[in-house]
Amino acid sequence: MEAEMKIGLIGNRGHQQYVFESLHQLPEVQITAIVSGSEEDDIGEIKTWCEKEGYSPVVYDDTDELLADSGIEVVSIAGPFELHSQMSIQAFKNGIHVFCEKPVALNLEELDLLHSEYQQGNVHFSAMMGLRYDPAFYTAWSAVRRGEIGQVRLIYAQKSYKLGTRPEYYSRRSTYGGTIPWVGSHAVDWVYWFSHAQFVSVTASHSRLFNSGYGDLEVSAMCHFVLQDEIFASVSLDYYRPETARTHGDDRVRVVGTQGVIEVRGGKVYLISDLLKQEQKIPAACDRMLFADFIHQVEGKSRSLLSAEDVFTVTEACLLARQSADESKPLYFGRYE
Amino acid sequence: MEAEMKIGLIGNRGHQQYVFESLHQLPEVQITAIVSGSEEDDIGEIKTWCEKEGYSPVVYDDTDELLADSGIEVVSIAGPFELHSQMSIQAFKNGIHVFCEKPVALNLEELDLLHSEYQQGNVHFSAMMGLRYDPAFYTAWSAVRRGEIGQVRLIYAQKSYKLGTRPEYYSRRSTYGGTIPWVGSHAVDWVYWFSHAQFVSVTASHSRLFNSGYGDLEVSAMCHFVLQDEIFASVSLDYYRPETARTHGDDRVRVVGTQGVIEVRGGKVYLISDLLKQEQKIPAACDRMLFADFIHQVEGKSRSLLSAEDVFTVTEACLLARQSADESKPLYFGRYE
Repeated sequence: MEAEMKIGLIGNRGHQQYVFESLHQLPEVQITAIVSGSEEDDIGEIKTWCEKEGYSPVVYDDTDELLADSGIEVVSIAGPFELHSQMSIQAFKNGIHVFCEKPVALNLEELDLLHSEYQQGNVHFSAMMGLRYDPAFYTAWSAVRRGEIGQVRLIYAQKSYKLGTRPEYYSRRSTYGGTIPWVGSHAVDWVYWFSHAQFVSVTASHSRLFNSGYGDLEVSAMCHFVLQDEIFASVSLDYYRPETARTHGDDRVRVVGTQGVIEVRGGKVYLISDLLKQEQKIPAACDRMLFADFIHQVEGKSRSLLSAEDVFTVTEACLLARQSADESKPLYFGRYE
Repeated sequence: MEAEMKIGLIGNRGHQQYVFESLHQLPEVQITAIVSGSEEDDIGEIKTWCEKEGYSPVVYDDTDELLADSGIEVVSIAGPFELHSQMSIQAFKNGIHVFCEKPVALNLEELDLLHSEYQQGNVHFSAMMGLRYDPAFYTAWSAVRRGEIGQVRLIYAQKSYKLGTRPEYYSRRSTYGGTIPWVGSHAVDWVYWFSHAQFVSVTASHSRLFNSGYGDLEVSAMCHFVLQDEIFASVSLDYYRPETARTHGDDRVRVVGTQGVIEVRGGKVYLISDLLKQEQKIPAACDRMLFADFIHQVEGKSRSLLSAEDVFTVTEACLLARQSADESKPLYFGRYE
């Protein structure tokens, strides 16, 4: 029988469900410890999910105590956002692998520190950028990697969310981080992942006008990226999806290549290329799961779709884009080369 | 019976069909003179169209002769592109109303001169930016004007064309003008027309890589516009639409407002808003025609959808975007305020 792998969960802001939805692929995993990331956050939901799965984790009062628990090999961190990087660094120092909600840092100084601490450690690090595992996006990406559209030249990536009712921490830049890092990280990740190219520069804009009283929260944003080989990308972000819409998000990508165009729209994949007589819908499927892939990489069984370096690059891109929007000027990459 | 209106046609690069398709709405119009804009250009097609419609125009050898024809009240100009502004200015001086293929000028110096000559004259001036009259785009714009999506916040506008086989003048910047002014003018016009807002700045990029040997011709481009009231727009342009695709162009616009989102895609109009229970397809229709509207404005019967000032503003936006792409830096508006 395989050795047990003990994991701890910190916080409940964002997407701890990535852990729970992967558990059926991970019989070796035991959730042995949980803690709230902040007094504001209720982890009752996490307790309930653990009970349902048959775990009886220790409930710590303090994240440092959990991170000092010598049995824990992996920690999954989900908020408060402004503590992501320092909790991750503490985990690195204690030899714990880290699966962290994005953004993994709320400013470039924290990101630089996180990067250097990661490089000094010997653990795996990845983030909850789970949309690489979405069936439609994974299928489209696989087609691009197989060369079905030739060389990638242009990318349009879109996230459009319902605003709904959000906790107070969304209203402050210091605790939310901004819409480009929070909503945009997925779209920026698609740009990087589909293009397979280094970022060169970004010019971005964001607006807090018409934000229904949510303080600092930007409800619209656009980013213009230049990547190597004169690949260009546009990222469109908004919180204006009507509450009446069928789905929470209207996630899209359109990738133009030298021999075809592929799109994800409404959960479906559309391909038109020089080799096809007409546009085709490609059946969408992905047999991999984000957190299972993370654990399998920790175990040395396989590599996940999302490396630690990918997480650093995409986080840098989001934070530079946010700064570009704050300062209304283009900014240039080169931090982690 | 209504007085006759005599019009002359110069050149056959671009879209003289806008004139011919409107003729059934314009019984007063007589095509009385035609001329080729350049030795390279064959106007045999124009002659054939005239014959079909029952006109026997004088065929001039020289554009100056046509523009000196005292009977002509209106001229429709379609190439060579690099002569658009000087032919238009000559027409203004001769008191002739001008309907001109876009772009109406290939650089900002020419555009400034054209603008000042227009202001000194007393004729109507407009351009072949006919996609305002496309049924789907007109229907979507009408819905936005009625307030169905609230305040406009974000716009994505797309033109994706087949490259096909093109005459040699497409291969030189000096005769083609560039893909942002040529293909992009429609998309930039949608941005301006749907937002109903002044441009503030533009950051753009374009590329000649993988252009199938077409010299200076840019095959991909993206433009990031900031407009007043923190409205943002992205324009995506490419010549990579596969030859096998059902239509020449994949024209789209997506407009995000504070109360809904409207889109044109594949000639159809999609609306989702706070007031609708689900996304709706709106029947697309437009009962107006570009050149008929132009003539009706000359006759004082009605105003067209596209004013001379619109043409100057959109041309300026295209030429500034091209310059931004050439110089890899943001540029700011304010020329015609």
